[in-house]
Amino acid sequence: MENEALTAVTLESKLLLKARVFEVHEKLIKLPSGSQVTRQMVAHPGAAVILPLDSEERVVMVRQYRFSAEKALLELPAGTLEIGEEPLICAKRELEEEVKCSARDWQRLGILFPAPGFCNEVQHCFMARDLEPRAAEGDEDELIEVERLSVAQVEEAIRSGELIDGKSVACLFKARLGGYI
Amino acid sequence: MENEALTAVTLESKLLLKARVFEVHEKLIKLPSGSQVTRQMVAHPGAAVILPLDSEERVVMVRQYRFSAEKALLELPAGTLEIGEEPLICAKRELEEEVKCSARDWQRLGILFPAPGFCNEVQHCFMARDLEPRAAEGDEDELIEVERLSVAQVEEAIRSGELIDGKSVACLFKARLGGYI
Repeated sequence: MENEALTAVTLESKLLLKARVFEVHEKLIKLPSGSQVTRQMVAHPGAAVILPLDSEERVVMVRQYRFSAEKALLELPAGTLEIGEEPLICAKRELEEEVKCSARDWQRLGILFPAPGFCNEVQHCFMARDLEPRAAEGDEDELIEVERLSVAQVEEAIRSGELIDGKSVACLFKARLGGYI
Repeated sequence: MENEALTAVTLESKLLLKARVFEVHEKLIKLPSGSQVTRQMVAHPGAAVILPLDSEERVVMVRQYRFSAEKALLELPAGTLEIGEEPLICAKRELEEEVKCSARDWQRLGILFPAPGFCNEVQHCFMARDLEPRAAEGDEDELIEVERLSVAQVEEAIRSGELIDGKSVACLFKARLGGYI
């Protein structure tokens, strides 16, 4: 569905800053009108988001301290891709590290752009079922606790404002529309 | 629900970069274990996201070119807050600018953190109903077309991967759980 009126062209791109998990690039862009604008963008390697459902149909979530929010948020397990990494490999690693589980049944739920206004991050969403416990080392810099919620409890957490992590809410709706929860 | 095991303290914060709509800050953080880590964070003024529902129960969406994604995405209308701006004021302005409508019925759907792993952006979500056309100037740098979709069409767009904007999918689920759509 290309639409020329909605298509611009990047003429130049330069690196402004290199941080631990993202970079900032500055782009010179030509609009369809012919005029040129300069925009700064966060370049991110992408992420995997996992919706693990246990044998009692509970969603296995994590409560994790977030420096950006200055508090702990209730979220689905997720993690940043290594450069060039296949998203499913990342999803399997993060499920082990964050909730100490592996899964025998994986289903793709598609992708999401969490912040397309200024960032190119793509989140790859997965259902993980048929879980089994797995000993795994966590990331020592991550402050995480595991919580298991019924689907009704998850919905109430969204309604009440307890669950405000965008990727988790969006991934749960994708799973709902896919008939998984 | 403060939990000391999940609480860290920011010891220092410095500005690394100032872009048009965001800044990058570097923070020195003390973990509960006592160890210190350095993290870079995108500081963002926040945004308003609007779910406009017309008199025929169609969702009024925008198809918008995104430099970050290098293509046009189907999204709910949204916009960045001015510094210190009340989110509802921003929501009303963006509804006028992007879809040339005003609304007589506004309802709050709560907040979302789109990318808490590296960014402090908070999105304030609103239902907008009882719409009426309104002449308004658009932002000339924004490449936008308006599309009206039934709720069934929106759901199919999420299932098919046509609708991949995270805030839109999450805001639609909040509206669903609130009984609005």
